[in-house]
Amino acid sequence: MGDAQRVMDRSNELAAISADPDHLVRVHLTPEHKAANELVASWMEEAGLSTWQDAAGNQCGRLEGREPDLPALLLGSHIDTVPDAGRYDGMLGVLLAIEVVARLRDRASELPFAIEVVAFSDEEGTRFGNALMGSRALSGQWDDEWWDLRDEDGISLAEAFVDFGLDPARLPGAFRRPEQFVGYLEAHIEQGPWLEDADRALGVVTSIAGARRFEFTMIGKAGHAGGSPYDRRRDALVGASELVVEIERISKERHVIGTVGKLEVLPGGVNVIPGRVDFSLDLRAEFDDDRDEALRAIREAAKEIAARRRLEFHAEEMYRADAVMCDLDLRSAVEAGIRATGDAEPMAMWSRAGHDGMAVVAVAPIAMLFIRCKGGVSHHPDESVTKADVAVALDAYEAAVLELAKQR
Amino acid sequence: MGDAQRVMDRSNELAAISADPDHLVRVHLTPEHKAANELVASWMEEAGLSTWQDAAGNQCGRLEGREPDLPALLLGSHIDTVPDAGRYDGMLGVLLAIEVVARLRDRASELPFAIEVVAFSDEEGTRFGNALMGSRALSGQWDDEWWDLRDEDGISLAEAFVDFGLDPARLPGAFRRPEQFVGYLEAHIEQGPWLEDADRALGVVTSIAGARRFEFTMIGKAGHAGGSPYDRRRDALVGASELVVEIERISKERHVIGTVGKLEVLPGGVNVIPGRVDFSLDLRAEFDDDRDEALRAIREAAKEIAARRRLEFHAEEMYRADAVMCDLDLRSAVEAGIRATGDAEPMAMWSRAGHDGMAVVAVAPIAMLFIRCKGGVSHHPDESVTKADVAVALDAYEAAVLELAKQR
Repeated sequence: MGDAQRVMDRSNELAAISADPDHLVRVHLTPEHKAANELVASWMEEAGLSTWQDAAGNQCGRLEGREPDLPALLLGSHIDTVPDAGRYDGMLGVLLAIEVVARLRDRASELPFAIEVVAFSDEEGTRFGNALMGSRALSGQWDDEWWDLRDEDGISLAEAFVDFGLDPARLPGAFRRPEQFVGYLEAHIEQGPWLEDADRALGVVTSIAGARRFEFTMIGKAGHAGGSPYDRRRDALVGASELVVEIERISKERHVIGTVGKLEVLPGGVNVIPGRVDFSLDLRAEFDDDRDEALRAIREAAKEIAARRRLEFHAEEMYRADAVMCDLDLRSAVEAGIRATGDAEPMAMWSRAGHDGMAVVAVAPIAMLFIRCKGGVSHHPDESVTKADVAVALDAYEAAVLELAKQR
Repeated sequence: MGDAQRVMDRSNELAAISADPDHLVRVHLTPEHKAANELVASWMEEAGLSTWQDAAGNQCGRLEGREPDLPALLLGSHIDTVPDAGRYDGMLGVLLAIEVVARLRDRASELPFAIEVVAFSDEEGTRFGNALMGSRALSGQWDDEWWDLRDEDGISLAEAFVDFGLDPARLPGAFRRPEQFVGYLEAHIEQGPWLEDADRALGVVTSIAGARRFEFTMIGKAGHAGGSPYDRRRDALVGASELVVEIERISKERHVIGTVGKLEVLPGGVNVIPGRVDFSLDLRAEFDDDRDEALRAIREAAKEIAARRRLEFHAEEMYRADAVMCDLDLRSAVEAGIRATGDAEPMAMWSRAGHDGMAVVAVAPIAMLFIRCKGGVSHHPDESVTKADVAVALDAYEAAVLELAKQR
C-alpha cells in the first residue's frame, strides 16, 4: 500500500497550493496553477513520463509503448478547484494516473499503445464561468469568443493567458486529433452517496449527465428602503428569491438537478431596495430532454415573476454540455479492472457531475472509474477518501489498462 | 432665485466627490469624506459661519446670535451616501442650512440664539453597518464597542479614525450637552411619493419611524451541485430565499416596511450548493410595536424554514432606533414657515426613513421639513428635486427660523 500512501501524501501536498491559506482555491491561469503544474510535472517525470505544458496550460506527460509514436491511451483529470474546495475532486484522478504509469513503466515495451497523462487546467470554470476549458482546448473545441471572458477582477482570458506565460495565438498547438488516441480513462471521486450506500469502493460510469449553465439577471429599481411603498417597489431580490424557490420545486418535480450557486445583489446597501440581482443556474439530468423541459418551466416561472413584479429578466447561456455515453469497450475494461479487485459485480451508475470526458469524447472514446467518497461530500473541505479505497482503485485502474492492452 | 440655483450647483459639485467616477458613493472617514468636509467648510465660511471639524469628523459651523455663547439652533443633515446614491439625500439639507444662514447673517444681532450648521459624517451606515454614527457622537450616545466594527476591507472604525487624522481617544470632545441647544431643524428630501401625489412642494414631519437592522445568517452545507441528491441537500440559499419572500409577505400584511438590501452567498461557485448566506434585514414602521410584532413573525418563519431544511439560522441586531416624535413647538415653527410660502394647510406626514434627528433628540428637541422629490425616488442616481421647490424650501426654512426667534 506504499503507492496509495504516496497518493494520499501528494493530495495533501497539492492542497497546500492555494490562493488562500485557509481555504483551498486554485483556479485557471493563476500563480497557484503554475505551481501545481510544476509539482505535477515533477511527479510525472519521477514516474517515467516525459512532460510538457501544452499551449492551453494543461500539464501533460507521455510514456511510449512498444514502439514510438503509437496512439495513446490518455489517463487523467483536472487540477483546478472550486472556491473552498476539497482535495480530491480532480486531483485524485491525476495522481492515480501517475501512479498507474509508475507501476506500468517497466512493462511499457509490451504495451500496444503509448500512455499519456493529463492534468487539465480548467474543469470547474471557477474563474471565467466557462467550464472544461482545458479539455475543450485539447479536443480542438475552442471558441475564440472565450478570449473576451472576464474574471471578477475584469481580467480577460486572453490577458490571463499572457500573464501565465502562454500565447493566445499559439492555442491551436494544444489541439489533438482522434487518430492520436485509443481512448480516455478518468478516475474520479463519486461526488455522490451511492457507492457508500451500497458498501462498495468502486463503480463504473455509464454516462455523464448533460449540464447547462446560465447567468440570470433580474432588474428592478433601487430606492430608499423606507420611502418606497410596496405598490411602487420593484425589488429585484424578492423576484430572484421567488425564482430560486421555484427552481428547486420544478427540479424536484422533474427529477433534474437545478442549483443556484452564485447570487449577487446590487447596489447592496442595508437600507436600499435591490435594483439588480445577478445569479447563476446550473441544470443537469441523466437525459438531456428532461433537463431542457425543466429549463422551459423555469423560464416560464421567471417570466411570470418578472411580469407580476414589473422586473426585467434576462438569461444568458454560459455553458452547455450534452449528456455523453461511456464507450462500451472501455467500460468493459474498467469493469474487468474492478472485478480483478474482488468485486464480482461492479456497480454501474451515471455521473451527476460533469467531467473532462464530456469534451475529450470529441477525439477519443471515454470511460470512468468512480471511487467512494465519505458522505458523498464534494466541493467542500470535508471531501474525504480512504487510503484503502485508493489502494483498491490503483489495482483496478492498472488492471483496466492491462485489459485494454490485452484487447488490442 | 439666485440662492436656489447656488444650492443646485453645489449639489452637483458635492456629487462629483465620489470614490467611483461613474457612481456616487462617499462613505464615512474616506478621502472623499475629507474632501467633502473641506468644500462644505468653505461654503460655511462664505455664509459667515466660523467652522471646525469635530472629534467625530462632523463638519460644523457657528454664527453667534445677539450675544456670544447663546444656546444654538442646530440646522443640518448628513453628507455621506449609500452606494450608487443620488445627490440630494442629506446633502440638500446641509446646503439649505448654509443658505439660510447666508440670508440671516445680517440679522444675527437680533437672534435670541446662535445658529449652528452641521454636516454629519455618517448617517447611512454604508461603511461600518452602524448608522447615525455622526449624530450619535454629537449627542453623546457613543458605544466604545463600535471601535472594533470593520468595513469590507477589514479596516476597523478605530483604524479609519486614525487614517482620517482623528484620534479615537479624543472622541468625547464631540459630545454636546442639552443646554447648548434650543433645537434641531433638518430639511430633507421626502424619499417617498406622498408630497408629489398631493401636489405639494413641502411637508412637515410628525415623527420618524423606528428602525431595526439585523444581520441574518443561514448556514447549510456546501457540496457539489451534481452529486448531492435533494433529500441530502442543505442549501442555504433556497432557505434564505424562502425567508426573503416571507419577509415581504409578513411586512405587507402588518403594514410595516421590511427590506433585504444585502445578501451574500458563500462559497459562490456556479456548481456548488451554497453553504452559507449572510443577509440583512431593515425593518421599520410608524409604531415600534407593529415593527416588533413583525419581527417576531419573521423570526418564527426563519425558525420554521431552518428546521425544515436542516439549516442553522442566526440573527444579530446591528442597529436599533425607536420611533421619535417631533417637538410640537418646533413643528409649529416649520408649519408657519411653510404657510409663509403660500401653502395654507401644510401637509403633515411621518418619515418612513431614519434621520439624524433620531440621535440628536437626546440633546435637543427636533423637527423636520420635507421637500418633494421626483417619483419618491431616493438612494438611486435618479434622485431629483426642482430648483423651484428648493427656492420655496429656502423661504420656508428661513421663515421657520425667524418664527422660532419670535417665539423666544
